[in-house]
Amino acid sequence: MPSHYCISLASVQKAQTAISGLVHRTPVLTNSTLDQWAERKIFLKCELFQKTGSFKIRGALNAVSNLGERGQEGLKARAVVTHSSGNHGQALALAARLQGIASYVVVPQTAPACKKAAMLEYGARLVECEPTDQSRVETASRTVTETQGILVHPNQDPLVIAGQGTIGLEILQQVPDVQAVVVPVGGGGLISGIAVAIKTQHPQVKIYAAEPEAADDCYQSKRSGWSPPTRHPPVTMADAVKTSIGSTTWPIIRDLVDDVFTVSEEEIQRATRLVWERAKLVIEPTAGLGVAVVLSRRFRDLPSSLHNVCVVLCGGNVDLDSPQWLRAPSVAS
Amino acid sequence: MPSHYCISLASVQKAQTAISGLVHRTPVLTNSTLDQWAERKIFLKCELFQKTGSFKIRGALNAVSNLGERGQEGLKARAVVTHSSGNHGQALALAARLQGIASYVVVPQTAPACKKAAMLEYGARLVECEPTDQSRVETASRTVTETQGILVHPNQDPLVIAGQGTIGLEILQQVPDVQAVVVPVGGGGLISGIAVAIKTQHPQVKIYAAEPEAADDCYQSKRSGWSPPTRHPPVTMADAVKTSIGSTTWPIIRDLVDDVFTVSEEEIQRATRLVWERAKLVIEPTAGLGVAVVLSRRFRDLPSSLHNVCVVLCGGNVDLDSPQWLRAPSVAS
Repeated sequence: MPSHYCISLASVQKAQTAISGLVHRTPVLTNSTLDQWAERKIFLKCELFQKTGSFKIRGALNAVSNLGERGQEGLKARAVVTHSSGNHGQALALAARLQGIASYVVVPQTAPACKKAAMLEYGARLVECEPTDQSRVETASRTVTETQGILVHPNQDPLVIAGQGTIGLEILQQVPDVQAVVVPVGGGGLISGIAVAIKTQHPQVKIYAAEPEAADDCYQSKRSGWSPPTRHPPVTMADAVKTSIGSTTWPIIRDLVDDVFTVSEEEIQRATRLVWERAKLVIEPTAGLGVAVVLSRRFRDLPSSLHNVCVVLCGGNVDLDSPQWLRAPSVAS
Repeated sequence: MPSHYCISLASVQKAQTAISGLVHRTPVLTNSTLDQWAERKIFLKCELFQKTGSFKIRGALNAVSNLGERGQEGLKARAVVTHSSGNHGQALALAARLQGIASYVVVPQTAPACKKAAMLEYGARLVECEPTDQSRVETASRTVTETQGILVHPNQDPLVIAGQGTIGLEILQQVPDVQAVVVPVGGGGLISGIAVAIKTQHPQVKIYAAEPEAADDCYQSKRSGWSPPTRHPPVTMADAVKTSIGSTTWPIIRDLVDDVFTVSEEEIQRATRLVWERAKLVIEPTAGLGVAVVLSRRFRDLPSSLHNVCVVLCGGNVDLDSPQWLRAPSVAS
């Protein structure tokens, strides 16, 4: 395992100790309809049941628990700051509250009320900005200065990545004969952590990335090499993976991710609905991404000897008042 | 334990052996938001994850596996018949298929297409009738004669009741320090089986029934004694408990159920949505009934020493195209 990665197996094991007892060891569920459709045995790692409704609390809590690792600046920090108004924002707010420090989340004025409410409920202080990237970054930077805070990046921070990797350790215990793990990719923090945790111990286990066709920067990077993202946010219902992989996660993804599978919006929608209908799990469309992959033609063409596949259901935070995919025809119909 | 009950602990244990390996040992989940709202520790017995999406497969499979217990008629039976087009209809169809015999389900011409489709998918043959009680009963009776079949009643059949009781055995193993179990009541098959399984071994564990105010025949029977139901089906969103308790389940309910809690339609709706939003579980409103009970004022007035409460989430079969309760305001808002 090259030493130039931002994290090691030891970082992930240390994270597991740091967050143990504060996060759930989420269950792994199976569903025979899904097995039938995928023509393999599918194990669902249920991070939708995680505290705050997504895996993000693992990384956030590991980051907040180890501010001292950032040297003097971290030791004297009195707050954490982020500019993610999604699952990471909620997770960082709860992590900060559990550790007794303040959290500031920079949100565009246009952010949905339900997201703001969820962060406020976990104790975050919201700092409004204009709905532009520039305003977000500037506002976050100013907030860091004003609050003597530490910026915790949602997916490029090594402590965050190590925290997400604890999912990999759990999968190895819960599904000892796992042969492949399918993980949604946005910034790549989740898949990088899991890949290091698993590949270091069991290099033969395949790590597959799941991406929307509409946001396929990981797929493109694996083909042509990575360069800093320049595009505007893509349009996909898998809203938690609109972001692109970064310079910290890229080396791990380049070396340890075996393949990237992309799926259409319709495939994501049908898979998400299938999980609601048959597995009875309230997942968000980004979690449906991995299920869409194992149901896709290209994945089903993989050898049948690849039998035990674990899909990480990354979260379940949906606005129940407007779940568009519920109105789509189901896979079964 | 009086010997005049239709089942004993031994019947439930025998059922457990009969259906073992063919049904899921469903998980028990917890949720801290729910604990906070209920001011107790709430354990959710997740029968929504059961095969066919509800607990009904347990009883149906025990009945179909033991047709020989019905004597000559059962030994020569070549089919099973029922007139329930809900969860029991689906369960009996799958149970029959697993045991290699035919199943006939009598359905009113007016039954929703999604229910018919679900039963057909499990291999049932549908026999249409007029949408009246009389036509249902007559058609079922004729179908029994024509098919040399056995009618399996959804909630008054002792083998069905013993099968549902296996949930009680699992709860005692999964939540060893359980102090109370809350169970939705329609015909009473589920609560009777669970009560016998649990009270025989641990008489101090409370068994509480959950009923809609709009369908409170169990509550009324416990106050004034049982008499055969004469009313028309009540109007409640908890559609799986519209039916009334019967002569077979009444003696067990009379003796072994400690109390009955009723809740309003609004309480059921809010509790169901809370479970979707916070516990990320796709439950049907009838499963929300038990959650509504533990959140109700009267239940919260019970002594705080009653700490560990298990709620049976009986099923998750909802029509995702028209889930009315999603449009209601959430408890949290």
